[in-house]
Amino acid sequence: MNTNKSVSKAEHTKAAIVDAALRLASQIGLEGLSIGALAEVTQMSKSGVFAHFGSREELQISVVREYYARFERDVFMPALQIPRGLPRLCALIDNWMDQVAHEVQSGCLFISGAVEFDDRSGPVRDALEQSIKTWLSAVRRCIAMAVEDGHLAKTTDPKQMMFEIHGLILAVHYEAKFLKSTRSMERAKVGFENLLSRYKI
Amino acid sequence: MNTNKSVSKAEHTKAAIVDAALRLASQIGLEGLSIGALAEVTQMSKSGVFAHFGSREELQISVVREYYARFERDVFMPALQIPRGLPRLCALIDNWMDQVAHEVQSGCLFISGAVEFDDRSGPVRDALEQSIKTWLSAVRRCIAMAVEDGHLAKTTDPKQMMFEIHGLILAVHYEAKFLKSTRSMERAKVGFENLLSRYKI
Repeated sequence: MNTNKSVSKAEHTKAAIVDAALRLASQIGLEGLSIGALAEVTQMSKSGVFAHFGSREELQISVVREYYARFERDVFMPALQIPRGLPRLCALIDNWMDQVAHEVQSGCLFISGAVEFDDRSGPVRDALEQSIKTWLSAVRRCIAMAVEDGHLAKTTDPKQMMFEIHGLILAVHYEAKFLKSTRSMERAKVGFENLLSRYKI
Repeated sequence: MNTNKSVSKAEHTKAAIVDAALRLASQIGLEGLSIGALAEVTQMSKSGVFAHFGSREELQISVVREYYARFERDVFMPALQIPRGLPRLCALIDNWMDQVAHEVQSGCLFISGAVEFDDRSGPVRDALEQSIKTWLSAVRRCIAMAVEDGHLAKTTDPKQMMFEIHGLILAVHYEAKFLKSTRSMERAKVGFENLLSRYKI
């Protein structure tokens, strides 16, 4: 019992550190993370933080995994409740856009991380790349199902449509976050409607 | 004569430093720039570099201006030789895509800079934001001319079309540079054709 309690307490502390690290990374980037900065934010000792991760790299990877787990929970999972085909695809893109709208305030690890790690190699980049590819594949599969179900034209190339949707997401983030445009979300939604009107039967 | 020669030599040295700084910033970001790092790259003394800029901020602003001047020279100016309307718009987007293809190797200051400065204020951000807005306005004007000339449908909203084109550019950069996709340029070109087929009369 005692051991289980200790394990549970350790997990709880680790989760709290990852949570603080994720918030910090969203603001200053994954590369800004350090055991020292986190110790300060969580009001723990450096050795206390270090005991849970062992290295800065391990901490960064935990943050990427946590970011992805939340993204999946908030964006992907609710769409699975919606009938497959076009309804699910639309729900998925709606959720993704909501997530981006939220991240215009807080920062998006998939976008800032890509810039930070685009010319690097190593396990942090691998974790980030893997998460993003998994997510883009999930969207692509949703598009493919909508084609199979006859909701989108048979000639639709899911990879092409995925690319065009990804562009809308990146543009809304760029124009809202950096250029402070207040109309970018509206434009992304019109852009998605435009895409649908081309690919729909 | 002697004074002119000195001015010219000083300008030449300053231009050489900005050139080195631009290459460095493309790799490591504007925030990675320092008088010290530049002194090392250019094999000058720190005080020598400092004499030309006075501050790191002034150096960063000079780099943004130089980046924009080259972008304008390579992407915008050649398109002005092409008849206005749709031909010029297509030339502009072609040149922009060529620029992005090139920058998948070297790095794009407009994209990495936006991530670095999205939650900051100050003269470096202002210079970057101003450059990007000027460029996007130029593209928007080209779209508006194509509408005026009857090459694109009268219902075309230049800001909406601009947003969708910007998305394709951001997606090709993201997918080629971070995800190492070899097909992203092809997809951006198909995406632009798709846009044209919607907006063309």
